[in-house]
Amino acid sequence: MKPVVTLLTDFGTADYFVAAVKGVILTINPLVSLVDITHEIPPQDIEAGAFTLLTCYRDFPPGTIHLAVVDPGVGSTRRAIVVSASAQFFVGPDNGLFSYVYDREASHKAFHVTAKEYFRSSPSPTFHGRDIFGPVAAALSNGVKPKKLGPRIGDQIRLPSLSPVKEANGKLRGRIIHIDHFGNCLTNFTRAELAGLTRFELRVKRKVIREVRSFFAEGGGPQTDCNQIFAIWGSAGFLEIAINGGSAAEALQAERGEPVIVSA
Amino acid sequence: MKPVVTLLTDFGTADYFVAAVKGVILTINPLVSLVDITHEIPPQDIEAGAFTLLTCYRDFPPGTIHLAVVDPGVGSTRRAIVVSASAQFFVGPDNGLFSYVYDREASHKAFHVTAKEYFRSSPSPTFHGRDIFGPVAAALSNGVKPKKLGPRIGDQIRLPSLSPVKEANGKLRGRIIHIDHFGNCLTNFTRAELAGLTRFELRVKRKVIREVRSFFAEGGGPQTDCNQIFAIWGSAGFLEIAINGGSAAEALQAERGEPVIVSA
Amino acid sequence: MKPVVTLLTDFGTADYFVAAVKGVILTINPLVSLVDITHEIPPQDIEAGAFTLLTCYRDFPPGTIHLAVVDPGVGSTRRAIVVSASAQFFVGPDNGLFSYVYDREASHKAFHVTAKEYFRSSPSPTFHGRDIFGPVAAALSNGVKPKKLGPRIGDQIRLPSLSPVKEANGKLRGRIIHIDHFGNCLTNFTRAELAGLTRFELRVKRKVIREVRSFFAEGGGPQTDCNQIFAIWGSAGFLEIAINGGSAAEALQAERGEPVIVSA
Repeated sequence: MKPVVTLLTDFGTADYFVAAVKGVILTINPLVSLVDITHEIPPQDIEAGAFTLLTCYRDFPPGTIHLAVVDPGVGSTRRAIVVSASAQFFVGPDNGLFSYVYDREASHKAFHVTAKEYFRSSPSPTFHGRDIFGPVAAALSNGVKPKKLGPRIGDQIRLPSLSPVKEANGKLRGRIIHIDHFGNCLTNFTRAELAGLTRFELRVKRKVIREVRSFFAEGGGPQTDCNQIFAIWGSAGFLEIAINGGSAAEALQAERGEPVIVSA
Repeated sequence: MKPVVTLLTDFGTADYFVAAVKGVILTINPLVSLVDITHEIPPQDIEAGAFTLLTCYRDFPPGTIHLAVVDPGVGSTRRAIVVSASAQFFVGPDNGLFSYVYDREASHKAFHVTAKEYFRSSPSPTFHGRDIFGPVAAALSNGVKPKKLGPRIGDQIRLPSLSPVKEANGKLRGRIIHIDHFGNCLTNFTRAELAGLTRFELRVKRKVIREVRSFFAEGGGPQTDCNQIFAIWGSAGFLEIAINGGSAAEALQAERGEPVIVSA
Repeated sequence: MKPVVTLLTDFGTADYFVAAVKGVILTINPLVSLVDITHEIPPQDIEAGAFTLLTCYRDFPPGTIHLAVVDPGVGSTRRAIVVSASAQFFVGPDNGLFSYVYDREASHKAFHVTAKEYFRSSPSPTFHGRDIFGPVAAALSNGVKPKKLGPRIGDQIRLPSLSPVKEANGKLRGRIIHIDHFGNCLTNFTRAELAGLTRFELRVKRKVIREVRSFFAEGGGPQTDCNQIFAIWGSAGFLEIAINGGSAAEALQAERGEPVIVSA
């Protein structure tokens, strides 16, 4: 057994934070494989953390433990939780960070982590990643069952649903939920929402997009003209707004949260 | 056996991309050691990816599998390839990314990867790193032979040679091929090209450099004056243009691609 | 046995440097667990490297080997050293990088690394991380004893002590020693220095702070008003200057080195 523990945080990579968490985990279980998802979630941006986790947790093997720390309420009364879902575990603060996992995995089970014997002694009120979540993730990797960590709960904090909204006029109102490293704009539209559309028309920032490509270079070489923006089904299952060889976000001057309207 | 799989991409580290590839690999072979070379290759900059791979692949143990994804043509008809060279493997798109390995390893063998049974089912046309290259790298780490993955080929895409050009007047014309984190400017001159020179004179951006140092602090303490720029044989085997304790790139206002002329 | 080797450098993550060191280590000992502390120490900033190492080395398991390379004197006569302290090892240049470990671990032992049989042959004078420190760290992970690497020494280079200074008027003069990813300003005050104070008043950049919180959100929701800056005992054991949900460094326009005065 060589369990995987992933880490997703807003810690950045310039400080001691990530290393401290890893050191603590390796002290408790030297056999884990540690994998960074990212440490570049914008500071205290729970929604961004929840989305990034959503886009990759299923790519990890059964038994993987996802340690996620975006935690503005650290030290306060917000709960520490463990969620069991899809044969994996999720450890972190109860602040909505696992919302999209709850939505996707109907049979998830959540536990309020109260068993202090699994924490470091005298946890710092400003660094539960190192003193509570890390040790708990390591305990899970050693085979400790979630129910040993605390009572089952069902009232975790949830973010609003990721799904677009159907408006009175039949149009679907979504938004840009993430802008990736290449400047592609991920919307919150999935194939389910757009199934059965006979015609496709997407509006974002006064721009109308009718082309849906299946790969970036489908239309030929690199283009950075704003007129050559297209939609494409992205690898995370969401409709993306893109431009070949350039940044659609830059071409559109779009930011996260920008409304996106699809009409049939 | 604990095979090493390295990753070199233009994915950045803020998104789910790198994690997804690692999750897929660990699902297929939990025993691999994953090592990031870098994920900061400028987006779609194949030459930069090829150069960075060149500068370190030989430092890895025999059997290492180098997974390299800088892939503007993802989803198009460009081929997926595996290259066997120097007792290591290289997996990625056939777009020139392994050119400098071909040049250095005369006995390399290349294979067009066509055996879909090693891919994830229904690969995303925008993320072959996760759905094709990752699984293929994992298969190699499990002992699958390259010839099982597809037919041998010899017509891979190649970038122009990295070597400087000898001009009619006897001068050697090279260029800045990489600027590193410290601002050192790596040229494409190797010792082979400059062997036998009785006198050394390098010109870059109207600056003439005659000093070749063997270590940075050879001339004393930190200097940031443009007049104190020198040449030095760098750790990757290329001649570098440097300044002690400062950034030569900044002092020279030099960018990648800048011509560098050496005369004897 | 699966020894941990950590890496702390000023190499950045865009070049081949970190990968080359890891490749060399894995070639010598494929069983190590490699953990990045950070590679974002500002170029050649020995004090910053020393501080970041201080804040996390104790979180790693016994036997851990900390490889630290911030090395402006690479290639010169500065010594390579191994330090044994707190059941761990530290490998790097003798330039003060381990100063704070010496201060905290009274029973440390230092060795001048001279046994060339543990180096790569013909080490590059510009990359001892790859050719000397990496191989030496790997040798330690294979069980080689420090005394096999070279003679015991006691005259290592030391940075000035991290402790604040007591002024004639009874005030304590410290400084901002680190600004973290969230903009929290870490001072060099520890609980030891402030024990027994009956009243607390901290001055930084003409601002007077009297509130010491125990967690960030203690005063309620996010605040970015400069008037709501407070002090807090941070997770590394140092007093921090912070603001809830914002960057204290930005609010104060403070940089590393800024004086911080505490009076009772």
